[in-house]
Amino acid sequence: MTVVALLLFEGCDVMDVTGPYEVLLTANRLASRWVVDLPFEVRTVSLDGRAVVAYGGLGLTPSHGALHDNHDAHQLVVPGLIDLDAGMADRVLVDGIARAGAHIDRVASVCTGAFLLEAAGLLGDGEATTHWEDAPALAELRGRGVTRDDVRWAIDGDVITSGGLSSGIAMALHLVEQVAGRPLAEATAAQIDYVWTLERG
Amino acid sequence: MTVVALLLFEGCDVMDVTGPYEVLLTANRLASRWVVDLPFEVRTVSLDGRAVVAYGGLGLTPSHGALHDNHDAHQLVVPGLIDLDAGMADRVLVDGIARAGAHIDRVASVCTGAFLLEAAGLLGDGEATTHWEDAPALAELRGRGVTRDDVRWAIDGDVITSGGLSSGIAMALHLVEQVAGRPLAEATAAQIDYVWTLERG
Repeated sequence: MTVVALLLFEGCDVMDVTGPYEVLLTANRLASRWVVDLPFEVRTVSLDGRAVVAYGGLGLTPSHGALHDNHDAHQLVVPGLIDLDAGMADRVLVDGIARAGAHIDRVASVCTGAFLLEAAGLLGDGEATTHWEDAPALAELRGRGVTRDDVRWAIDGDVITSGGLSSGIAMALHLVEQVAGRPLAEATAAQIDYVWTLERG
Repeated sequence: MTVVALLLFEGCDVMDVTGPYEVLLTANRLASRWVVDLPFEVRTVSLDGRAVVAYGGLGLTPSHGALHDNHDAHQLVVPGLIDLDAGMADRVLVDGIARAGAHIDRVASVCTGAFLLEAAGLLGDGEATTHWEDAPALAELRGRGVTRDDVRWAIDGDVITSGGLSSGIAMALHLVEQVAGRPLAEATAAQIDYVWTLERG
């Protein structure tokens, strides 16, 4: 079973978290119907284990406490945020992601979460993506590699970045494919009524 | 400004809430860029104003307290849930939706939320939809009208029902079109990287 920790923080974009959350839970539900092993344990965590207020005012309380207590997770998912300047300047947030990245092998971002991975020193020199609107800024920040604005997710070793908001759903379906195979990933996409494509639009 | 109340309850499907939430917030953000009036006020509410635990364990705290304190809302959005039997048997939930429906003119559901609208006496005799897998059961429960499994949303007067999970995003984009016009709805779909279609897949 792959343990996935979805990070919550102040001002995070709620669809970036809940898209992957729902995909992984749905994959589990279908696996249960198919009488195969559940592929995922889905955890929500925050930096200090406390509730946060997401962008738009919805409060989110993590199911599994503090990020630093979840180093047994196999996959970390970092959502994006609208006020990116505030996020990049938040050393507690960036340092928390960096420390978790040192223990958790596989890291993913959704939308502008790619900027937080870069700030945390977790993005490599290969391909990455982010929200199409922010791709030029991420390319400039990185100063290396290939930053794409035409795909829903990009893979660079153990780091997966994904595009804007609903692209996190597409990326999570890729995680289902990696962990449990293409049939379950396609059934999950159908179950959540999502048109699953690698390329945007 | 159209005031939209998104209902949270125990075991609700989080994407059913956060899909429309993110669409409406994004439409507002783009309207602000375009220097036009903000089309929406986005509220999250629960039956008694307290936090709930969504399906999968994520805690949700409403930004605007109790449903019955939000009768000035113009649009109510009722999400679905996995344990539909429990939801249909929950008289507090069904009665709360029924009472709100008496004051709030326009009602929408996402996924199996359509069953809750039916139980609350809010579905009419026209077209409705729900998750494709549950459409036969909804048709049987209604015993009238047309229950579709091939569209992302269906309109019956002031009641809009939508299909499974991510179809709530499509339905919310339709609300943006109704309130603020097609160009903003299309720009919102592009901004959240969502392929917006009326018909499924």
